[in-house]
Formats: sequence, structure tokens, C-alpha cells
Amino acid sequence: MSLRFELLASDAGTAARRGRITTTRSVIETPVFMPVGTAATVKALTQDMLEALDARIILANTYHLFLRPGHEVIRELGGLHRFMSWPRSILTDSGGYQVFSLGELRTISEEGVTFRSHLDGTRLLLSPEVSMEVQIALGSDIVMAFDECPPYPASPEQVRHSLELTERWARRCRTYFDTHADRERQSLFGIVQGSVYPELRARSLEGLLEIGFEGYAIGGLSVGEEKHLMYDTTEFIAPRLPADKPRYLMGVGTPADLVESVARGVDMFDCVMPTRHARNGTVFTTTGRLNLRNARYVRDEQPLDPDCTCAVCRRYSRAYLAHLLRTGEILASILATYHNVHHYLDLMRQIRHALERAEFSRFRADFHRRQLSSEESLST
Amino acid sequence: MSLRFELLASDAGTAARRGRITTTRSVIETPVFMPVGTAATVKALTQDMLEALDARIILANTYHLFLRPGHEVIRELGGLHRFMSWPRSILTDSGGYQVFSLGELRTISEEGVTFRSHLDGTRLLLSPEVSMEVQIALGSDIVMAFDECPPYPASPEQVRHSLELTERWARRCRTYFDTHADRERQSLFGIVQGSVYPELRARSLEGLLEIGFEGYAIGGLSVGEEKHLMYDTTEFIAPRLPADKPRYLMGVGTPADLVESVARGVDMFDCVMPTRHARNGTVFTTTGRLNLRNARYVRDEQPLDPDCTCAVCRRYSRAYLAHLLRTGEILASILATYHNVHHYLDLMRQIRHALERAEFSRFRADFHRRQLSSEESLST
Ligand SMILES: [Zn+2]
Ligand SMILES: [Zn+2]
Repeated sequence: MSLRFELLASDAGTAARRGRITTTRSVIETPVFMPVGTAATVKALTQDMLEALDARIILANTYHLFLRPGHEVIRELGGLHRFMSWPRSILTDSGGYQVFSLGELRTISEEGVTFRSHLDGTRLLLSPEVSMEVQIALGSDIVMAFDECPPYPASPEQVRHSLELTERWARRCRTYFDTHADRERQSLFGIVQGSVYPELRARSLEGLLEIGFEGYAIGGLSVGEEKHLMYDTTEFIAPRLPADKPRYLMGVGTPADLVESVARGVDMFDCVMPTRHARNGTVFTTTGRLNLRNARYVRDEQPLDPDCTCAVCRRYSRAYLAHLLRTGEILASILATYHNVHHYLDLMRQIRHALERAEFSRFRADFHRRQLSSEESLST
Repeated sequence: MSLRFELLASDAGTAARRGRITTTRSVIETPVFMPVGTAATVKALTQDMLEALDARIILANTYHLFLRPGHEVIRELGGLHRFMSWPRSILTDSGGYQVFSLGELRTISEEGVTFRSHLDGTRLLLSPEVSMEVQIALGSDIVMAFDECPPYPASPEQVRHSLELTERWARRCRTYFDTHADRERQSLFGIVQGSVYPELRARSLEGLLEIGFEGYAIGGLSVGEEKHLMYDTTEFIAPRLPADKPRYLMGVGTPADLVESVARGVDMFDCVMPTRHARNGTVFTTTGRLNLRNARYVRDEQPLDPDCTCAVCRRYSRAYLAHLLRTGEILASILATYHNVHHYLDLMRQIRHALERAEFSRFRADFHRRQLSSEESLST
């Protein structure tokens, strides 16, 4: 069995769950946040740093690796884990989200999506079979089905049409995966679409359940909809996903989003926010965000977050980070990213700890109180 | 005493020396290479990495820190060591070289150099007293005198004129330093100028010896002159510097330059080459340089240098580095810089080891044979 999911505890007051995913490569305690390593690197971190941060699973992007260096190169070099020297688990997205974001440059058909590479204009096809072939070649522990992610907003009619295509694609993914993947090591997750329409979400799920997957993701959220719609949709669909399989909310989100989505039954998350914000000088703290470009930090001797125990907060000051950022030094990105990823992974540790002690509701209330107590978090 | 220099061994066949500098902050085995940390960071490395690489002293640039964040800010924050969290030794240059490089933007007078900041056009003065004030505020362990570095080529007449100014400035540096510096922790080095003219080098040295410094640097080389002139000038002047003080050849050089300059009696080096080349994808190996942009490395599973024991060579392949470089990932800079700085520091360790065993001449011959054996090193 390529992936095992154990449900260790369920919260009494919410849909939150404490679980554990075991792949052939690592034990992943859930709820978990997966740092994003788009092009086979979590930007600005070394793999030693990711290990020191105790990341057990990272995400990589099929679209980017398909274009460069190409899955054939990575297969020849022994797969993605060996290529990037990352022995723990890797989840790859299907590439769908990226090609749909190309807009003018792509055409959707029953077969798949033809698009022009943003690098050199080459005409390429990404289809359920190609996406599976690429992810299998990469050797991903968790492979995502190739789905269509409709734009937001979209009418119920558009979304229904898209769902049906996604379902047919999901079936083709399952078939190709089952005949070509290394099923001792690799697992396939289906993706529930349906935008913000509960009945369409339910219908999408029904189709996926009929096919059967090793885990279920919620796609098509955090794409521009209002926050309450994201929360409501998650609240509707997450508890309906099979209780004995991991539930993954794709592309979400802020620390508050993670806490709220855990409360609604989600186990897995990924988001570029901690890494991308770090490179722009925005750091997360237990009382909110700081923007290091703000003049007030030029002489601030405090660590990024006085409550943080990470290696960066133990060694460097806000003043130093602010200087590095202003001078455009690479070290600014390294240190801010390390701290932000630590912040996210530590938040998940705290959530898991609270769930183990049956104190999640109290944790959730304290979390929101702390965030609100920060003046800067209100103003940014 | 702020700085102690011990001469541990002298080579029988060359002017090479094995020594030890002790500051209040670290023990520096010589010959030593000092990684360049222009704006209070060795670009793309964390201070943890510098410690893992066993760097005992780094160089920082007065000009850059004077402009940003300003020496007053760094003084308020407890000095440069505390600001950047670097507990070991720091040498700062005088800022002279940078302001002279501004060309049109600066004017030289007896008082000093007025220039416009390359950042915001502000009109500023850097003089012997200001340079000392800034370096004292930074808390540098080794402070460099403010000298004029004449352009290359320059006529003997121009160079003589420049020397005389540099000597008057050196005297003002000594006076200001002696009345304002923390003499328990800080030392002042003089800089010998004189371009490629032996008699002017000798005259410059004579003036500096009369003033007296804790160490002597050779400036004005590696500024465009032919390599044999650099070697000949070093060969002439280095052995004439006081034997009981450290000898520092500024801004040099390639690995071969280090070996050859050690043979001519130099103890200390700094150069942006290992760090700057790394960011451009050029890595140093025991058999020469590799340019990772070369297509031949896309599928190359070897480490950067099969003979290197650094953390990067133990974990990552040329293929992975080549991919990171092509995708413009920060990790390419981090890993290549780490390896290159390791290469330079390891070369110095090997040189010291050879000197301890009285095998320097054999080491030097082997070194050049290895470099020549590489095809790529000949073609790049
Ligand atoms: Zn931190
Ligand atoms: Zn190496």
C-alpha cells in the first residue's frame, strides 16, 4: 500500500481531525502544511534547512518541471527525489492550474489543454495521460488528477460543464495511473471542483467517489472569491469527503485560513504565501504580519517575532533583515523565508498539539485574539 | 594588544610563511583568504554557513555601510559584529577604492574625496578622518588606512604625486585612529601603493614604516595590469614588508594567484571572485573552473567537484545546480557560493598544511599540474 492514513483524533466541537499519513518516504503528521517547491526547490531554502524545519512533505509543480528541465531528464537522473536530494515525500500538482492561468496561450478540448510554453513558445499538450506520465516519471509520492479549474466567477452552467469534463479526465487519470504508476510508492488524489455551489460540489464528489482515489482534494477555492464563500464551501464539502482518506485544500492560505479550514475538516494545505511574502519582506508573527520595508524597523533590535524559536529569530534582528532587504541582498530572502516557513510549520504543530489535548477550540479562539491584538496586522 | 601575529614557519625554497593572527575575536591561521561581505553579508550565505565553512575573518566595505544603513545606525545597534551576528573577526576596507571607482562622480583634494552617493546623489566627503570614524564606529577588528589608489596605467610622475598624498593621509589616519579607536580591540593597517614601479613601492613602504602600522597591505594591484607585473611587483615588495607583521595583498585573486602570492610572501587575501563567479554559475574545482550554463552539465550526476568534501558536493549534482541556474533560482547562488568559498578556504588549508610539512614547493607544482590537466580550465 503506497499511502496509509490513520485518523488519530477528532475534535468534539468542530470537524477538525488529527491524523497521520505514511508514505514509503516519510511519516506526515496532519494537519500538515506543505511548503511549495515549484521548480524542484523551495525558493531560497536549502534542503538541509527544510530538514531542520522538519518539513515532511513538499509540493512541486508539474507544469514547471515538464517545461524545464523536462520529466525525461529527471527520470534519467533517478526521479525528482534524487534529482533535488529530497528523501522525504513529494506531492505534485497536475499542471492544470498553471496551464489554465495562461489565458490566451491555451486551448481546452476533450483531449486536454494545448498551450504555448511561456519560456520559448513551443506548442505543447497537457492531458490527463500526459500529466500522469509526467508525475509518474517524477516519482511523486502523491500524484494529483488533471482537472479543469473554472475561472471565478462562473455561472452554474459553466461550472457544471467543467465538472463533467473534470470527471471524465479523472477517470482517464485513474486508468493511466493504475496501469503505469509504481503503485507500491505512488498514490493518486482526485480533485473536487464545483466553485461556490454546494450542489455542484456534492455532484463532483459523487463522481470522484465512484472512481475512487487514495485521497481527495478541494480545488477551485482561493481563486478570487470572497473569504466567507471559501469558508462556507469548505465547511460544506470537507466533512463530506471520506473520513478515512486525507483531505487536501489546494492553494490555501493565510495562517487564519489554515486554522479555520482545519476547523472545517481539512488535513493538508499548500500555499506560496509564506515563501513569496518572505521575498517581498513580509514576515508572519504570532501577532500578525510585519512589512520589513517599514522605516520603523531600521533600528529595531528585536527578532522578527519575539515569540518565535526559529534559528533566524535566535540570531538576527529586524534591523539587520530590514537592511538586507533594502540593499537587495539574497540573505534577506533566505532568512525571511526560513522564518516564515517555520511560522507555518509551527502553527501546524500547535494545531496538532491542541487537537491531541482536545483543546482546539480554545487554541482557535486564542489564535484569533492574538492576531487581532496587533496594530500592524490590522493596518496591513 | 589588539592583534598578535606569530610567524610559525617559513618556507625554505620560497618567501612563503605559515603564521597566526590573533584578534580579540578569533584566531586566524595564515595564509588566509577572507570572504567578501560587502554590505554586511557574504552574498548568498548565512552566518551559520560561514561558521560551518570555518571562516575566521571576513571583509566588509566601508563605502557601502557608510551609505546604507550608515555607521551611526550600526554603532547604535552595537557595532557591525552584533548587527550582522558575526562574532569572529572583521576587516573593513577604507572606502577609498570604491569612491575612486566612481569616476566622474568624485573630486579628490588634500582634504579627501567628495562624491555623490550612487544611491541618491547626496554629496558626501570621505577623508582619512571620516574613514577612520566610520570604521571605528563599525567596530572592525582590522581597520584599513584611507589611501588613494591611482588608475592603471599611470605614469611614474602621477604615481609619485599620489604616493605623497597617500602618505599624508596615512599619517592623518594613524593620528585619528590613535586618539579615537578602541585600541584594545582594533588595529590599523597601512597600504603600500606605487603601481608597478619598484622604486615607488619601496618609497611608499618607507613612508609607512616611519608612521608604523599593525600590518601592511599591498594595494593598487589586480587593477588591470598584466599578470606578470602583478607577480613581479608582489615578489619585489612583499618580502620587504616587516616580517613580524601580517602582509595583505588586496583584491587578489584566482586560486593560482593565491598560491603564487603566498610563494612571494603574502599572508592575507580577499577577492569577490569566488562569490561573484558563483552567482554567475562558475564554480572552482581542483582541476579548473566549470561554467554550469554549459549544456554538458544538464544530465551530469557528478558533484560540482568529485574531489571536494563540502556539504554541497556531498548532497547535490551538477545537473541539479545547472537546472537551478537556468531557472534563476536563489538556491543556485546559495549552493554555488557555498562550494566556491569552501574551495578557496580549503585551498588555504592545503597551503598551510604544506607549509607545516615543509612541502610547499611540491604542493605548488602539483597544484599547477592539476589545473593544467583540465580541458575546460584551459578553454574558459
Ligand atoms: Zn523566527
Ligand atoms: Zn564542494
